[in-house]
Amino acid sequence: MGDRPCKAYPETPLETANTPALDELTRHGISGIMDPIKPGIRPGSDTAHLSIFGYDPYIYYKGRGPFEAIGAGVDVKPGEIALRANFATIDSNDIIKDRRAGRSIPEGDEFAKSLANLTLSCAPDVKPFFIHTVEHRGVLKLQGPHLSSAISDMDPDVENTKVMKCLPLDGSPEAKRTAEIMNEFFQRTKEILIKSPLNKARKQKNLPLVNAVLLRGAGIAPKLRTLQEIYNIRAACICGAPLYRGVAKIVGMTPINVPEATGTIETNTLAKGKAALDHLNEYDFIFIHIKGTDSASHDGNYANKVMMIEKIDAMVKLLIDKTSPEETIIAITADHADPICIRDHTADPVPITIAGNGCLSDNNPKFSERSCAKGGLGRIRGLDVMPILMDLIDHSKKFGA
Amino acid sequence: MGDRPCKAYPETPLETANTPALDELTRHGISGIMDPIKPGIRPGSDTAHLSIFGYDPYIYYKGRGPFEAIGAGVDVKPGEIALRANFATIDSNDIIKDRRAGRSIPEGDEFAKSLANLTLSCAPDVKPFFIHTVEHRGVLKLQGPHLSSAISDMDPDVENTKVMKCLPLDGSPEAKRTAEIMNEFFQRTKEILIKSPLNKARKQKNLPLVNAVLLRGAGIAPKLRTLQEIYNIRAACICGAPLYRGVAKIVGMTPINVPEATGTIETNTLAKGKAALDHLNEYDFIFIHIKGTDSASHDGNYANKVMMIEKIDAMVKLLIDKTSPEETIIAITADHADPICIRDHTADPVPITIAGNGCLSDNNPKFSERSCAKGGLGRIRGLDVMPILMDLIDHSKKFGA
Repeated sequence: MGDRPCKAYPETPLETANTPALDELTRHGISGIMDPIKPGIRPGSDTAHLSIFGYDPYIYYKGRGPFEAIGAGVDVKPGEIALRANFATIDSNDIIKDRRAGRSIPEGDEFAKSLANLTLSCAPDVKPFFIHTVEHRGVLKLQGPHLSSAISDMDPDVENTKVMKCLPLDGSPEAKRTAEIMNEFFQRTKEILIKSPLNKARKQKNLPLVNAVLLRGAGIAPKLRTLQEIYNIRAACICGAPLYRGVAKIVGMTPINVPEATGTIETNTLAKGKAALDHLNEYDFIFIHIKGTDSASHDGNYANKVMMIEKIDAMVKLLIDKTSPEETIIAITADHADPICIRDHTADPVPITIAGNGCLSDNNPKFSERSCAKGGLGRIRGLDVMPILMDLIDHSKKFGA
Repeated sequence: MGDRPCKAYPETPLETANTPALDELTRHGISGIMDPIKPGIRPGSDTAHLSIFGYDPYIYYKGRGPFEAIGAGVDVKPGEIALRANFATIDSNDIIKDRRAGRSIPEGDEFAKSLANLTLSCAPDVKPFFIHTVEHRGVLKLQGPHLSSAISDMDPDVENTKVMKCLPLDGSPEAKRTAEIMNEFFQRTKEILIKSPLNKARKQKNLPLVNAVLLRGAGIAPKLRTLQEIYNIRAACICGAPLYRGVAKIVGMTPINVPEATGTIETNTLAKGKAALDHLNEYDFIFIHIKGTDSASHDGNYANKVMMIEKIDAMVKLLIDKTSPEETIIAITADHADPICIRDHTADPVPITIAGNGCLSDNNPKFSERSCAKGGLGRIRGLDVMPILMDLIDHSKKFGA
C-alpha cells in the first residue's frame, strides 16, 4: 500500500485516494510510520510478515518454499525442505517455452502421482515428495538426512531461456548434495513426464506439454512458538494468496475461508471484513491480508492502486461501523512499500494507525505516508507491532517486577 | 507517571495537572517519548531502571531479590542468590492468615537470630542467611555451589490461600536442588518459629504469631561495571523505596539519605530536591526517584496521581530556580507507564524532556505523553538515555577516530 512520490505522480496513491474511513480511524487513533524489517532494508512479503507477526526474520527466515507449501495446504514439518514448483513446457534443449504449461492443468494430480515413487541414485536415503496444488503449481518436499536449503533456483523466471542448473550457495557438503539431488530430480522427472500417456492426450488437444518441473525458493520450515504460546491469544487469518496464509499458519493462525477472497484486485474486501466480524467472538486476533494494492504496484498501475485503497477503505468503514472501540482495536498497515515508479518492493517505511480503547489519539487527519510520519507513534519497526497490540489488549506479561 | 486516556478520563494525569515548571523545562529543552525497554514490552520497575541506567536487562537482569536486598542494606555479592522474605502468620494447614504478621515486628532481629544457625539436610554445603530489614520484611541469601534462581515464588501474594510449594522453573539440577532447599527452609523455619518464646509473648499481647517466612523474587546479583567505570562520573541517588536504591547502588551510585523521602505519596519532594542541590558539587550525576505517582496508579487514584505530579513540579521549580542551565542538565522521565484504568505497568512509551546547555530546544509547550510525542528527540529507548546525557555533559568517548 505504501508508495513514494515521483515526477508522474507527485502525490502517493494513499494521498490521492478518497479514504474517509481510514482517515476517521487515524484521527481517533495513534499513527506513525513503520519499517517492516529495519530502515533501508527492502522486505520480501514473507520476511515482512514474519517480522510484523513478531518473529525476527534474521533468525527465523530460511526460505520461501515452506510458507507457500503450507499456505497451499501441503503438510511441511519443521526442519523439512520445501521448494515451490511449476509444471512447465520446455524444448529438447531445456529452453523454457511456457513457464506454466498453459496454466490450466486438470491432470496435475495424475502427473504428480507418476512422480511419486522416484528414488534418486545420487541420494537413495532421501525421499522426494512432489505434490500438485492448483493450476500449474506444485511443491517439492525433501525428507532425509544431510540436506540444505542453500541452493540456487532452477527456474529463471523468464521464458525462452534455459532451465538453470541448481548450484550450492555455500561450501557445505549438504548444499552440494542437495543441489545434486535437484539436478537429478529435474532430469528424472523430465524422462518420466515425456513418456506419460497424459501428454499424448494433451498433444492431441493441442495443449502445451507438461514435460518439466521448475523449482525455486528452497527453504527449511522454521520451528516457531505460536502466537498462542507466546501471547495466549486465539488467532485467525483471512488471506487469499497462499504465501500469506502459509506464514499465518506457521505462526499459529487458523485460516478463515472466504470464497470471494481471491488474492487479486477483483477480491471482495467487504466479504473479508464481514468474515472477520462474523468470527470476532471466537478469536482474540484476526489478521486480514489484502494483496491487490501490491499487484497493482507490480503492474505500475496507479489507478488500480487507488481503486484498491478505496476498496480497503470500504472494508474499514464496515469494521468501524460494526465494532466498538471499547472492545476492538483496529490496526492498519502494509507489509512493505511498492512504489508505482519502481514496480517492486522498496524499503520506505509504511504508514500505520492503531485505534481503539487506550490509544493516545494524536488527532492526525489523514492515513498517508507523509501525514502518519508526524503521528504520535513515531517511527517503529515491524517487530514492535505485535507487542504494542498485545499490550493494548492486555495480553502482555511484565518483564521484571 | 505516564498514562493513557480512557473513557472516564479522556485526559491523562500529566495533561490535567498544573505543571508550570515541567512545562517551562520542556519549552526550553528537547523532548520526546521513550520506551523504557522496547516498544510493546511491559517493564518491571527493576528492569526499567536497569535499562534507563544503560544496562540491557535482557543481559543483566536475573531476578528482583538482590536489588531489594541491597537497597535494604544487605550485602549481596555478584553471583549470590537473594530472595525477598516476609514474616507471616499461617494456620496449621499453611493457609496464610496475615502476609505481614501484623506489619510491626519489633522482635524481627531476634526472630532472625533464631534462624541463624540453620543447616539443611538436603544441602549441607549451602549456607542460608536470613536477615531482617524493616517491619515484616527480610531477605534470604544463599551461599554455596550449584544454586539457581530459576525457582517459583512461595508467597502467593494473597491471603487465605495456601503457601505455595517452591518448584524449579527449568530442567536444571541446580533449579531442582534450590527448590528443595526452599521447601526444607520453609518447613524448618516454621518448626523453629512456632517454638520461639517471642511468639509466646506476642500471643499474650494478642499479636499475630510470626510463624512462617514467605519467599519470593529469587534472583542472582549481577556483576556490572559501575557508572564510574563506564562514564567516569561520580553518581548519587535519592530514593525512598529499597528496590530503586538497590538498582542504583548496584550500578555504583552513592545513596544520599533524605529522612523525609518516604517512598510514599506523603514523601517530601522539596526535601529531595534540596538534598540534590546540596550535593551538586560532590557529584556529576544525581538520580532522584519519586515513587508516589506509581503508587497512586496502582490504587487507581487519579486525583492522587495529579497531586503527586504537582508535587514533582514543585521540586522541578526548585531545581530550575537554584541551578544554571549552563552548568546543570535536568532530565525528567518515568520508568514506565501505569495507567489509572489498568492499575498496573503497561508498555506505553513515557514522555522525556532534557533541558540545559547544548540541548536542541524544540519549543514544545507541555510535558505530557501527547505533546512530547511531537518533540525533537523522537522515540528513543531506555538504553539511549544515559549515553545521551553523558554526551551532553561531555563524559562520552568517541567510538572510532
